[in-house]
Amino acid sequence: MTFSNVRKVRIEWADCDPAGIVFYPRYFAIFDAATSALFERALGMTMIRYLKAFDFAGYPLVRTRARFIRPTRYGDDVTVESAISFGHSSFDVAHHITRGGLTCVECSETRVWVVLDPADRSRYKSHPVPDTVRLKFGV
Amino acid sequence: MTFSNVRKVRIEWADCDPAGIVFYPRYFAIFDAATSALFERALGMTMIRYLKAFDFAGYPLVRTRARFIRPTRYGDDVTVESAISFGHSSFDVAHHITRGGLTCVECSETRVWVVLDPADRSRYKSHPVPDTVRLKFGV
Amino acid sequence: MTFSNVRKVRIEWADCDPAGIVFYPRYFAIFDAATSALFERALGMTMIRYLKAFDFAGYPLVRTRARFIRPTRYGDDVTVESAISFGHSSFDVAHHITRGGLTCVECSETRVWVVLDPADRSRYKSHPVPDTVRLKFGV
Amino acid sequence: MTFSNVRKVRIEWADCDPAGIVFYPRYFAIFDAATSALFERALGMTMIRYLKAFDFAGYPLVRTRARFIRPTRYGDDVTVESAISFGHSSFDVAHHITRGGLTCVECSETRVWVVLDPADRSRYKSHPVPDTVRLKFGV
Repeated sequence: MTFSNVRKVRIEWADCDPAGIVFYPRYFAIFDAATSALFERALGMTMIRYLKAFDFAGYPLVRTRARFIRPTRYGDDVTVESAISFGHSSFDVAHHITRGGLTCVECSETRVWVVLDPADRSRYKSHPVPDTVRLKFGV
Repeated sequence: MTFSNVRKVRIEWADCDPAGIVFYPRYFAIFDAATSALFERALGMTMIRYLKAFDFAGYPLVRTRARFIRPTRYGDDVTVESAISFGHSSFDVAHHITRGGLTCVECSETRVWVVLDPADRSRYKSHPVPDTVRLKFGV
Repeated sequence: MTFSNVRKVRIEWADCDPAGIVFYPRYFAIFDAATSALFERALGMTMIRYLKAFDFAGYPLVRTRARFIRPTRYGDDVTVESAISFGHSSFDVAHHITRGGLTCVECSETRVWVVLDPADRSRYKSHPVPDTVRLKFGV
Repeated sequence: MTFSNVRKVRIEWADCDPAGIVFYPRYFAIFDAATSALFERALGMTMIRYLKAFDFAGYPLVRTRARFIRPTRYGDDVTVESAISFGHSSFDVAHHITRGGLTCVECSETRVWVVLDPADRSRYKSHPVPDTVRLKFGV
């Protein structure tokens, strides 16, 4: 079972390169914000609050795959649909960017739930996703 | 057969997020610059010149996969090793980021060689990689 | 007389640095998008269209000044108010970022209206702001 | 008296917008890195170390002014010259970007030395620049 979220994003001049199309690393910033938006909606609070409320240090990326099918340009209003599915101490998010119903980008990412390592507060270690979090996602 | 290039990159404060580690989309900007550095070395001129000299519009990404194994932090001097192998009208680049000999990130990307579409100068179309380019790479 | 626009912007994780506050160059990307939003509202079309409709190459920045009064953090929803006033071939935009009614950043920028130089299409030259544009702004 | 530093920076494809010239917010990331390079050279260690060694939280920007005189393009190797002068709990840095001896950008910035507020560790407060730091700069 998955939980999903949909949002509109404007492609800005700043997102585009001299070819006039999106500079692709910008898509990953869009995906990163989309993952946080998914958590914000499920948990009912912004990231700065849910990191504290659920006492964790974040969900760094461990793997991503993306296919770029159609370019987007500044002024395009695209739709980002993101669906999350949980593992034990990790989760996958599938992102789809469409414009006018046509797929532009597909991405799947894997992230791990991390907490500060009690033995060395400058390091992170993976941790099971809390049940209280799963419950909020209804999964 | 492949052609490869190695470069040093400093991870800057600007590349890092509130967790104090690299914001991962920044790695893709590093990979994009590494691919251009590979071409710059093989072709003996900067990108703005080789786009003209070989009369093409760029090499947009169609697919990328990356694994993030160890985080990097601002002040880290990392090594980016990039190896290219050519297809007919596309090429693959494998990038490895290491710090002190330890792998931090692995990425493989596929790009297509594109020219402006003569039928519609606002669009791109794929085109075989010119032999003059392959020769410069010695492949 | 001035024409102004107001928009809401979410400060994202991606906008922040290891100190947990906005990495200030990100504000200038916010201002750049705010200036384009101002034109989009006045001219009734997106930038990619108004560059063509009014046959110009853009409005590069020639000067900016900014004061950073209060930091913003990821999850903050800030208000960006932008007011434009026109000169002959340039215009000024004053941007104010507030959060909860408190000023966080003040910026004033000067931009020039440019067209491609007919003598060298790889260069830009300044050009008077067309009256048709001024009329749309009601100034 | 001032202390100065000079570095070479390559303008990358990623730094440029659909007009083919630098997207100006990128210059501020270049200036930010130039200020850190100045400290790195004077203090003999990278930022992540000097923040700890001198027990402070950073030097956020409070004001910046910049003039953009000539555009730069991807492939340009520019020179960034930065000169610092200290106040009591703040300092000014003047940055000049030149290409082939011609000035492209001039910027002056004011930053404050901050420490974590003992009364509220999520906030920063200004603090006199330590004499041990001034000594390293020879000023």
